[in-house]
Amino acid sequence: MDLKQIAKDTAKTVISYLTYQAVRTVIAQLSETDPPTALWLQQFSTRERVQDGEAYMQSLLQEKAALGFRILTVREHLANEICEFLPEMVQTGIQESNLNLRCQQLERMTQVMPDSTDATDTADTNRDDRPGNASAPETESEP
Amino acid sequence: MDLKQIAKDTAKTVISYLTYQAVRTVIAQLSETDPPTALWLQQFSTRERVQDGEAYMQSLLQEKAALGFRILTVREHLANEICEFLPEMVQTGIQESNLNLRCQQLERMTQVMPDSTDATDTADTNRDDRPGNASAPETESEP
Repeated sequence: MDLKQIAKDTAKTVISYLTYQAVRTVIAQLSETDPPTALWLQQFSTRERVQDGEAYMQSLLQEKAALGFRILTVREHLANEICEFLPEMVQTGIQESNLNLRCQQLERMTQVMPDSTDATDTADTNRDDRPGNASAPETESEP
Repeated sequence: MDLKQIAKDTAKTVISYLTYQAVRTVIAQLSETDPPTALWLQQFSTRERVQDGEAYMQSLLQEKAALGFRILTVREHLANEICEFLPEMVQTGIQESNLNLRCQQLERMTQVMPDSTDATDTADTNRDDRPGNASAPETESEP
């Protein structure tokens, strides 16, 4: 696990995502002040892939420099405003999501159990073929 | 500009990205200890979209719970290890990228200049019609 590389790649993903959000913000602003340019930027952004923020900005600066400069300013502003909250939001988000997913899975596993107990009550033979027993080790023994 | 919503959406994007990195990490580990399961997880991850980390994890937990739990643990570990560095990496990354893009654009704009200076050397009249002069305000006056 190359933590340094993962951290770099994650930062790059966030930068591209903030570029996308900056483009959305500028399109929203322009749609009120200058609808034709808003439309142009929207069409440009469907043509050029915003997923790679760097390549997208290079193309945009070549086509409409002033619009490109404006998006650079907006994405820097976005980064300054939200970055300090990111670590806590991500860590809390993952903890909550993990807890929910684990609980859901636990509920699913315990919902199978009553069936298997019922099955044992009615047919006490063939214990190993019980659906409950068959499915539980399957999930537990996985690597 | 709804900063709160943008911050939430960015955190969600980071969580999905860390889920993807956790899946990659577990595939790499399994390819050494348990190649068949590594292959299965790889194929599962091309079938199910990792882009939505939450939906992906729900499907995985239903199919192979133990593998799902392992990925939950890895993504939580990744978040704890890299999150504290993210704000600085993203902010510095955007500042550097913005500076580079602005410099590149400035270079492109000034690369037109030398031609125009050459033109001025040979023909010193029509100063205002020089391509350098003509193109500079054009890019600056854009909306």
